[in-house]
Amino acid sequence: MKKILQVIDRKHKFDEASAHCDVPCGIYDPITAQISALTVVRMVDLLNSHFEDNKETVDFANRASRLVSTKEEHAEKTKHEIRIIWGDFLKEEHFKKYPELNLIVHQIMKLGSECKQHVDRELAIELLKKVNEFAEIFWDIKGESVIIAKAPYAPNLELVYRKI
Amino acid sequence: MKKILQVIDRKHKFDEASAHCDVPCGIYDPITAQISALTVVRMVDLLNSHFEDNKETVDFANRASRLVSTKEEHAEKTKHEIRIIWGDFLKEEHFKKYPELNLIVHQIMKLGSECKQHVDRELAIELLKKVNEFAEIFWDIKGESVIIAKAPYAPNLELVYRKI
Amino acid sequence: MKKILQVIDRKHKFDEASAHCDVPCGIYDPITAQISALTVVRMVDLLNSHFEDNKETVDFANRASRLVSTKEEHAEKTKHEIRIIWGDFLKEEHFKKYPELNLIVHQIMKLGSECKQHVDRELAIELLKKVNEFAEIFWDIKGESVIIAKAPYAPNLELVYRKI
Amino acid sequence: MKKILQVIDRKHKFDEASAHCDVPCGIYDPITAQISALTVVRMVDLLNSHFEDNKETVDFANRASRLVSTKEEHAEKTKHEIRIIWGDFLKEEHFKKYPELNLIVHQIMKLGSECKQHVDRELAIELLKKVNEFAEIFWDIKGESVIIAKAPYAPNLELVYRKI
Amino acid sequence: MKKILQVIDRKHKFDEASAHCDVPCGIYDPITAQISALTVVRMVDLLNSHFEDNKETVDFANRASRLVSTKEEHAEKTKHEIRIIWGDFLKEEHFKKYPELNLIVHQIMKLGSECKQHVDRELAIELLKKVNEFAEIFWDIKGESVIIAKAPYAPNLELVYRKI
Amino acid sequence: MKKILQVIDRKHKFDEASAHCDVPCGIYDPITAQISALTVVRMVDLLNSHFEDNKETVDFANRASRLVSTKEEHAEKTKHEIRIIWGDFLKEEHFKKYPELNLIVHQIMKLGSECKQHVDRELAIELLKKVNEFAEIFWDIKGESVIIAKAPYAPNLELVYRKI
Repeated sequence: MKKILQVIDRKHKFDEASAHCDVPCGIYDPITAQISALTVVRMVDLLNSHFEDNKETVDFANRASRLVSTKEEHAEKTKHEIRIIWGDFLKEEHFKKYPELNLIVHQIMKLGSECKQHVDRELAIELLKKVNEFAEIFWDIKGESVIIAKAPYAPNLELVYRKI
Repeated sequence: MKKILQVIDRKHKFDEASAHCDVPCGIYDPITAQISALTVVRMVDLLNSHFEDNKETVDFANRASRLVSTKEEHAEKTKHEIRIIWGDFLKEEHFKKYPELNLIVHQIMKLGSECKQHVDRELAIELLKKVNEFAEIFWDIKGESVIIAKAPYAPNLELVYRKI
Repeated sequence: MKKILQVIDRKHKFDEASAHCDVPCGIYDPITAQISALTVVRMVDLLNSHFEDNKETVDFANRASRLVSTKEEHAEKTKHEIRIIWGDFLKEEHFKKYPELNLIVHQIMKLGSECKQHVDRELAIELLKKVNEFAEIFWDIKGESVIIAKAPYAPNLELVYRKI
Repeated sequence: MKKILQVIDRKHKFDEASAHCDVPCGIYDPITAQISALTVVRMVDLLNSHFEDNKETVDFANRASRLVSTKEEHAEKTKHEIRIIWGDFLKEEHFKKYPELNLIVHQIMKLGSECKQHVDRELAIELLKKVNEFAEIFWDIKGESVIIAKAPYAPNLELVYRKI
Repeated sequence: MKKILQVIDRKHKFDEASAHCDVPCGIYDPITAQISALTVVRMVDLLNSHFEDNKETVDFANRASRLVSTKEEHAEKTKHEIRIIWGDFLKEEHFKKYPELNLIVHQIMKLGSECKQHVDRELAIELLKKVNEFAEIFWDIKGESVIIAKAPYAPNLELVYRKI
Repeated sequence: MKKILQVIDRKHKFDEASAHCDVPCGIYDPITAQISALTVVRMVDLLNSHFEDNKETVDFANRASRLVSTKEEHAEKTKHEIRIIWGDFLKEEHFKKYPELNLIVHQIMKLGSECKQHVDRELAIELLKKVNEFAEIFWDIKGESVIIAKAPYAPNLELVYRKI
């Protein structure tokens, strides 16, 4: 009997969780993935300008190594944050309404890796673009309006923000 | 000119990388995800039998806490390992040949989270089943045969192994 | 001679970095700390309502353990993100203009730990309040206006947002 | 009285755990350490071939940095996985039956570090060889037969597999 | 009523915790931060001598990359350890008695980041000096005497030790 | 020819590294492992006294969970720090001079895991004792004298300190 109640309880919690996360806690926000994707672009820009310097110094090697690591970290974070929202918040019903959604997520994973493998502004811009597309669909599902505005920090590219 | 050569070089590396990973290094193997999913089942079993003990002792609380953490860790690892193979190795051409592939990956993400949220053998078995399905498709893409055999450790469930 | 040039170069980079981060990359945004602080409040709410349930089940212990861990993680993240902005972006000149700044940062560290140590809504609200105060000063330094609005997810408390 | 029962309970669990891990969970498998050691060889090969390219580009530095990091990560993982099996599964009785065991483990630790410190195929091959030796002893203790076969991914070196 | 008792209990624990940590556990020791700061100096020395070698080899790049990473890790650890003691152990009353304390902590954060950004012995020495100053105040608060002695490992600089 | 020189260079570095670490950097100090082992004892004490409280409150569960996690973390850290010194600093010549050394290290690994699995003061004291024995041998190899003194924080047990 206790067993049965537990199962029912679980089902109930699933419904309650239908718009929620891994806990489930309900606090999803693509802004963290967007800031990470923007940081990837920033690192590409800093790496490209850095490689115009004298490449023989120890300070050069130090900074090159740190810029690559930071790019790596934020490309990974972008992928991780999107995977959480995709796996925990998005359901099959959303894939029916937005049939391109799974492909966008897969492209973010692929572009995230390619941005690790290369120092290429076009790839990084493409990653940011896909993450912005994802954010737009996300807020549409949540019934919130969005606004497109430039980020207040370099490289000052456009992000899809929730309208406050 | 150097710029152009670099771009060509990158394109070339993409082709070379077409069956490879995040580095890309080419060493993909679903066995790590399968062992993690099996460990999730094991933790559920240990938790269920543990809760038949006296719940008042400090040793009880210590072990309960550690079993939940280990379950958490391996459910996360399952999701992470599958995401890497999906994002880095699998391409759109594979989604055409195996149209259920994206959904299987999404179900692994969803089940991974549900196995964190609950202590439920059916959910854990379902997670393992989906990871085995993924392994079967993976080895089929790689042109390798598979064999189904029981794991040599409790809970001794069947895994899809590459045939050696 | 090369040594001297390197030193000069470093000095120059320090100036350039005056509004920047650990890389320095310049992408600072208190919103991640604010979302983490809000998540701490959310975990306290979920823990409190969770403890009205039957405490004997394995699912109860599983969820209690995960809620505590998530609270822990986000309290730590709140502290870490604020420490980065404080240590890398803020300078002695800012402490002169905002003499309460160091104390606010210290209170965030202290409250972050207290929110780990307890399940107490007042403490969590106080943490969020201090992080909001920090965000307000941060955007003031950056010359950006702010707007106070409710977060679009439970517990729907007010956050200090940059005005877009 | 409760104290005494607790102590007895603990002793009992120790026996039950005699073939088990840190939880103890019983799921030990040297294959993860073997895949990591193989990945170290792979990284050495990729690094060596990479250094035949033009070393001035930013893409060169990016890839060199990532290959070194991945080598580092897998050398560490090799050491960590072997340490777990050694510390949690292996007992003094095994050291009597296999008197070279402690030395093999120490050599894996030493070689793991040397493979971090250098880019040297001979060292990496030696690490893999020692991990294979360890796997062979491990499966012998578990009463399982082994088979030696080439890995299905570059560098396609031989691994000691459990016979399925 | 239970609510009230809980609140009282919490207040009581705060007092008990007044000389304690994040748990609170009471085991604070600046020696770990001091060893980390010393390691930063060591890495700067190793990097500087390393850059006198042939820069074209793969072993050169491997070691350069690892030295930078280790410097990064220990600079971060220095900052993290000091932040814990500052946020969890130090109280407003200590800031009154040692009015320079908050500034010393801020300088450690700033110097920690600068030691990441550069390979500069003066900066690393300055970081160690500030961490030593912090240790001296810490032991003074704890009512312990200190002794200044050279570390028993390169670069054999002076550390502020608790007198045993 | 370059190849040969590289090999010679590597051999030379090995000699230079004979008393050094994973970098190799030469900064080994068992004090961090000793502080961690002491923290394990402290957590056991705090857990035991905590379980005399009312076990129904959410604050009880919160603190129990955190004490177990902290115990876990420091038991792991103890094992990790000792493994580094054993694998990177200690050589076969030391095992000849101190024939019990490998067994002490293995016991630390085993006790570290048992201290995770249980809340047992005797086990934690035994872990600390073995780590102290290790420290004594370590400083003997380094040619430094030691002094036994009580730690300046609870549980105020004796540690083997290097004589300053």
